[in-house]
Amino acid sequence: MDADYHVAALGNAIVDVIYPTNDEFLLKHNIAKGVMTLIDEHRAEILVTAMSGGREIAGGSAANTMAGLASLGARGLFIGKVKDDRLGESFAASMRETGVSFLAEASDMGASTACCLIAVTPDGHRSMNTYLGASREIAPADIDTSRISHSEILYIEGYLWDAPQAKSAITKAIRAAKRAGRRVAFTLSDPFCVGLHRAEFLDLMKEDLDIVFANEDEASALFETARFDETLQRARNWRGIMALTRSEKGCVVVRDDELHVLNAAPVERVIDTTGAGDQFAAGFLYGLTHDKTLEDCGRLGAITAAEVIAHYGARPETSLARLAKEANLD
Amino acid sequence: MDADYHVAALGNAIVDVIYPTNDEFLLKHNIAKGVMTLIDEHRAEILVTAMSGGREIAGGSAANTMAGLASLGARGLFIGKVKDDRLGESFAASMRETGVSFLAEASDMGASTACCLIAVTPDGHRSMNTYLGASREIAPADIDTSRISHSEILYIEGYLWDAPQAKSAITKAIRAAKRAGRRVAFTLSDPFCVGLHRAEFLDLMKEDLDIVFANEDEASALFETARFDETLQRARNWRGIMALTRSEKGCVVVRDDELHVLNAAPVERVIDTTGAGDQFAAGFLYGLTHDKTLEDCGRLGAITAAEVIAHYGARPETSLARLAKEANLD
Repeated sequence: MDADYHVAALGNAIVDVIYPTNDEFLLKHNIAKGVMTLIDEHRAEILVTAMSGGREIAGGSAANTMAGLASLGARGLFIGKVKDDRLGESFAASMRETGVSFLAEASDMGASTACCLIAVTPDGHRSMNTYLGASREIAPADIDTSRISHSEILYIEGYLWDAPQAKSAITKAIRAAKRAGRRVAFTLSDPFCVGLHRAEFLDLMKEDLDIVFANEDEASALFETARFDETLQRARNWRGIMALTRSEKGCVVVRDDELHVLNAAPVERVIDTTGAGDQFAAGFLYGLTHDKTLEDCGRLGAITAAEVIAHYGARPETSLARLAKEANLD
Repeated sequence: MDADYHVAALGNAIVDVIYPTNDEFLLKHNIAKGVMTLIDEHRAEILVTAMSGGREIAGGSAANTMAGLASLGARGLFIGKVKDDRLGESFAASMRETGVSFLAEASDMGASTACCLIAVTPDGHRSMNTYLGASREIAPADIDTSRISHSEILYIEGYLWDAPQAKSAITKAIRAAKRAGRRVAFTLSDPFCVGLHRAEFLDLMKEDLDIVFANEDEASALFETARFDETLQRARNWRGIMALTRSEKGCVVVRDDELHVLNAAPVERVIDTTGAGDQFAAGFLYGLTHDKTLEDCGRLGAITAAEVIAHYGARPETSLARLAKEANLD
């Protein structure tokens, strides 16, 4: 390749803390069972202490995608904001362990490193408490334009499009990629997120984005369409590559006049769908940066998504490179 | 419309005889349980006598489609061969009851009217014994070219492409439709059927056919493709309209550069998938002959297919016209 990295990703730098416990603990700490709750720094501090000893693993959507890309054998760079604290170190160590470069300067002021405190009860429920902290304080100064211009694709997590400084950081990164003739990929992240930023996302799609990942709900929120086929016709009219994921229905991938309808890869038993979209993006981006046809990019995405939903957790547990090889897609 | 009929159909004229019984009866009459067995005239005579008193209803793939079209409010003509015998009369009466014109001259010689003798055991299994008899003796003399030229679409059941005389009859009908500037639709019927006649079906597609219905297995047998997306690319390269049905995955419809990915219509509980393809074709052909968009043709097909799989039997039991109206597709 004519670049240092296959993919440079911009996303939330979150440490997942997975803490096996019981219902009594949830009651004592006032944790809503089975849902995701956004929490503030004060409450995060209390829960981090209460849940100390939990398993810590770097999380966040684009960071998960980068872990998948590394497992496929691609070279990746992750850009995200952490604080110079214990969880910040934990995030950096966990990312590097996967083989992804993580070079951000940890901040010595501002909010603490973001974390998602996950209490897992014996009945399998996951009660999540997310503190976005330092992650959403990412700013233009955190963007290493030189490294981005040396990455084949810049990949951006839609969740990060939130605070004004973060938007400026993303815009700076896009400018750097475009100037270097690189492609820019974007994931819509969440239907609620699309609802908040619909006009801005459509604006980004006009000239800045080349590849968009969206599940059916996100794409329908973006285009304000009621039926999948309407969504698809809108996607076909866009100038870039759009990968529309549809859970067990597989995915549809469009680029200009090209259109592929691909099946989901078989999964013996679906255990936890967390991270399916992140890993789909990993497989797809691997394909795009390794001269695969668009059909094969989608097939790679289906295979990597299938791996992650067959077990708990949002990151691959088997070598994705081996799975790709078995499907003759390496 | 500028025609007497919306659709003229050519297909097997079969009387279904549905006979509720028990396992003892199956054993006594040597009937293989739960499968479809082709039987000869002698055996058909024995079983017709043994199963007398069973409910008789006109059947056959294209005939079922015409019943669906009639339920939608379209004007249809069915062309198929029966003998001048009791089951022949039963077929004609049952077809006319649905509102479909059936004008064939019943033959006074040759094989008896075709029948499918269905023994239904208390466990819900259907053991089918099919005698094709008179149906496969259809010949060019049975083709009323004048009526075909006054039908907007000629619809042909692939199952009928079998005996040499039947092939000549189909060819004669196609010539008549083409001369009158009408469109010709064809259903591939069955993967085994496609396997037998693959080269001839592809040959028909070169110039004669304008619309082809196929489920995923049939289309993959036709194009000798392994994955659905490959099948789809082949369908896109064909000059006509191809409707690819995919059971619970919905359908994909292509015409030139147009391509629609449509969901299956919701079904509370799938009871019996017999006739799903036949009724999909009914909804789709209704759309084509009533100035609907290609997307709406597929949506109509999804609605009519969903009705028939929600109960036993291959013909609609509720007014399809009402269902179409409820979906604003009338």
